[in-house]
Amino acid sequence: MKTQEMFTSHPRNIRFDLDQLTACISACTECADSCTVCADACLGEEKVQMLVRCIGLNQDCADVCGVTARILARQSESESLLLRLQLETCATACRICAEECDKHAEMHRHCRVCANSCRNCEDKCRVMLKAMMTER
Amino acid sequence: MKTQEMFTSHPRNIRFDLDQLTACISACTECADSCTVCADACLGEEKVQMLVRCIGLNQDCADVCGVTARILARQSESESLLLRLQLETCATACRICAEECDKHAEMHRHCRVCANSCRNCEDKCRVMLKAMMTER
Amino acid sequence: MKTQEMFTSHPRNIRFDLDQLTACISACTECADSCTVCADACLGEEKVQMLVRCIGLNQDCADVCGVTARILARQSESESLLLRLQLETCATACRICAEECDKHAEMHRHCRVCANSCRNCEDKCRVMLKAMMTER
Amino acid sequence: MKTQEMFTSHPRNIRFDLDQLTACISACTECADSCTVCADACLGEEKVQMLVRCIGLNQDCADVCGVTARILARQSESESLLLRLQLETCATACRICAEECDKHAEMHRHCRVCANSCRNCEDKCRVMLKAMMTER
Repeated sequence: MKTQEMFTSHPRNIRFDLDQLTACISACTECADSCTVCADACLGEEKVQMLVRCIGLNQDCADVCGVTARILARQSESESLLLRLQLETCATACRICAEECDKHAEMHRHCRVCANSCRNCEDKCRVMLKAMMTER
Repeated sequence: MKTQEMFTSHPRNIRFDLDQLTACISACTECADSCTVCADACLGEEKVQMLVRCIGLNQDCADVCGVTARILARQSESESLLLRLQLETCATACRICAEECDKHAEMHRHCRVCANSCRNCEDKCRVMLKAMMTER
Repeated sequence: MKTQEMFTSHPRNIRFDLDQLTACISACTECADSCTVCADACLGEEKVQMLVRCIGLNQDCADVCGVTARILARQSESESLLLRLQLETCATACRICAEECDKHAEMHRHCRVCANSCRNCEDKCRVMLKAMMTER
Repeated sequence: MKTQEMFTSHPRNIRFDLDQLTACISACTECADSCTVCADACLGEEKVQMLVRCIGLNQDCADVCGVTARILARQSESESLLLRLQLETCATACRICAEECDKHAEMHRHCRVCANSCRNCEDKCRVMLKAMMTER
């Protein structure tokens, strides 16, 4: 994974386990992509009216995940408190979005796949949060 | 303000005071712009080495404010919990960034102006958070 | 305007007219906000099916305008070719989105206001492009 | 790849080869991540003064790639002209950023890896552009 290779040559001391950090960044960007595709696929469905809430939450989740990836990627002057709040916000956005996507998972495979991306991203954020709890 | 005019024709019932909501969106986008310019101006300074932390926090704050504006702008299927966490994250990013910008405010006017944008955005987010507290 | 005040203390020589530059950044961020609100308001309309194309173009336009504002805000190591392509892309996104919003302007005031934001943003981008043409 | 699986259940007819489309989206998001990490790693280097241009271009490239991924992900109401301009802008941002990263590739492995991400993303954008040329 390219991000991990880059962190090994990062001039500052990265205080996270690199596997956990890069897994979380990957999960965030993958979830952002999934949510953007899911919002668009929902928008293209005939019964879009039923999917309005799914589209709205997909958009919010895509935005939050995208920014979480960027803040995780910036380790030179990382602020614990901000990172913790961002991870908490992201885990919550992912959980809410997954719950909504689940409702349409039987009908729409894009919702089923998206729910999986959201769950995976929530997990990876919580792993990071747990690692930060026990930090010192 | 265009955003406010748009909310008055929004099909759903907006549960926020429109003045507060649009003031918060404006403060977020203005702060995002200020932080992006400040990061870039710091990067162009001769003594960039002294401003590394300011640049990093400016970037984080610009990203968080930008997404906060978008989530605030989406009122059709807004989720209270997500919005509250996002506003909390944004207020914190703004406070941390303002404190760092303050350190360079004497030397660099762009840092002084940026600190003001951050403080204003933190305030507007806290007004929204307070309004949400007393919601029910 | 805060962005303009910041550019006057920017350490590098800004090669644009500051009024034009800051007007273009403002127009981009305002248009991004308008498009995000319009997409959300359309999504909340009963006849959302009729507004699918409007929502899709609003989202694209919001994203393109947001990034254009950021690239314009970074003047320390600005690249003419990239900026020109970005402004051209943005002007086009705005024109296409305005044309779609116009179709719903009678019915939905949010579309009418959004079309105005898009037109204003297209204009400001074209002013910048023209200024860059005559650059040397 | 999740995005590809999602496109196979997309309600609209996707007019692109799904392998090419998902490869381009992946390349854009990977490049966005790489550029964000590289900007941050450069910012953390002792001789940050030498890397100012690299940081600035990394930031622009990260933003452009991120938005390109989103516009590619929205296929329900995709506009050929906008997509073509966006891909052209992205390919150019990647080329310029790769050229700058190359200058520091001997000294900094993060710049070497980032240059590779940029080249890969430029290639994938050009493949898409070529496919669009021969469209009809």
